[in-house]
Amino acid sequence: MAAWGERLAGVRGVLLDISGVLYDGGEGGGAPIAGSVEALARLKRSQLKVRFCTNESQKSRGDLVGMLRRLGFDISEGEVTAPAPATCLILKERGLRPHLLIHDGVRSEFDQIDTSNPNCVVIADAGEGFSYQNMNKAFQVLMELENPVLLSLGKGRYYKETSGLMLDVGPYMKALEYACGIEAEVVGKPSPEFFKSALREMGLEAHQSRALVSHDA
Amino acid sequence: MAAWGERLAGVRGVLLDISGVLYDGGEGGGAPIAGSVEALARLKRSQLKVRFCTNESQKSRGDLVGMLRRLGFDISEGEVTAPAPATCLILKERGLRPHLLIHDGVRSEFDQIDTSNPNCVVIADAGEGFSYQNMNKAFQVLMELENPVLLSLGKGRYYKETSGLMLDVGPYMKALEYACGIEAEVVGKPSPEFFKSALREMGLEAHQSRALVSHDA
Repeated sequence: MAAWGERLAGVRGVLLDISGVLYDGGEGGGAPIAGSVEALARLKRSQLKVRFCTNESQKSRGDLVGMLRRLGFDISEGEVTAPAPATCLILKERGLRPHLLIHDGVRSEFDQIDTSNPNCVVIADAGEGFSYQNMNKAFQVLMELENPVLLSLGKGRYYKETSGLMLDVGPYMKALEYACGIEAEVVGKPSPEFFKSALREMGLEAHQSRALVSHDA
Repeated sequence: MAAWGERLAGVRGVLLDISGVLYDGGEGGGAPIAGSVEALARLKRSQLKVRFCTNESQKSRGDLVGMLRRLGFDISEGEVTAPAPATCLILKERGLRPHLLIHDGVRSEFDQIDTSNPNCVVIADAGEGFSYQNMNKAFQVLMELENPVLLSLGKGRYYKETSGLMLDVGPYMKALEYACGIEAEVVGKPSPEFFKSALREMGLEAHQSRALVSHDA
């Protein structure tokens, strides 16, 4: 207990990953990790600020939070930092119009974004959407740009579902990088900017927080 | 002409790439590149030995040669060095039983190979076969192996079809490398071993030959 006390000295907030920390996804919405519902409830009862920092990009924040609440977690949409809203900010700031290679479940996050005459590609964990045809289309869009810009929502290698390991967005980001001879810009963990934005939303500095993330983040 | 004469001094043979040198693939079998049918005919009439060295891995050599003959090229199956037969030799030598992520058009080249209880993955230009499901299966096979072995038939970034640029096997090789944290073994160009095997089949040394390859080989 003393060791934990020392490690937590000065800490005022906790950033929690979701997939692999609170639950494992899968058929029927996945399953909570043993003890995580109660652990979150205890954190919420403590003096610590709690925020969720996820690379989830198959679902909108609304759908994600709804699913987690049904599993018993005490969580609200405003407590979640996720790559899709962060990407929308970047697109607007830089006047970028994306070709989207994303999962239908997260498409609503991009409702306000101009996708006509694309001048960049946004790639996220598209799951079955990573068909050859869709990958080739994203590749062709990039090859036609004078300055190809590829934004990737995370760069995870794989994640665990109840049915087994599943390829995440990272391998497909690498595929497009190699095909086009470019380097993607990663929005989401492990980008320092992404963690900083979560801290800003908590009103804390880095030394005042600890992050609990899954092994692949 | 003098410059060419000097560059060809001592040269006794020519290795020719096929896609991008003799023809561009595409709907209906593709189209010969202007002048290539006659250029090959002239080479064949010369004193030079001619051999074809291709990374084509969507078709068996028999199907490839049949298609090229219909386009007017003077070519026979025994004159072609291709990655699939070279891979079969490696698999047999090393006792490897592959999970195949390949195009149906080249599957017949692997008819004599034991694919039960796989202990490696062979990846080739699978085209539409590069679905998320098929990539995930290859990934899962690799992750379950103690010593994951990935053989890739070439590592081309993309190739040109009459309808536009198409992703080749290289990006998908990179995706699996990143997902599994491994490095693939490339069978085919630009592997020196592959060029050497083509030279052996011509009975020539490297200094006695020149290779004409497409930009992405």
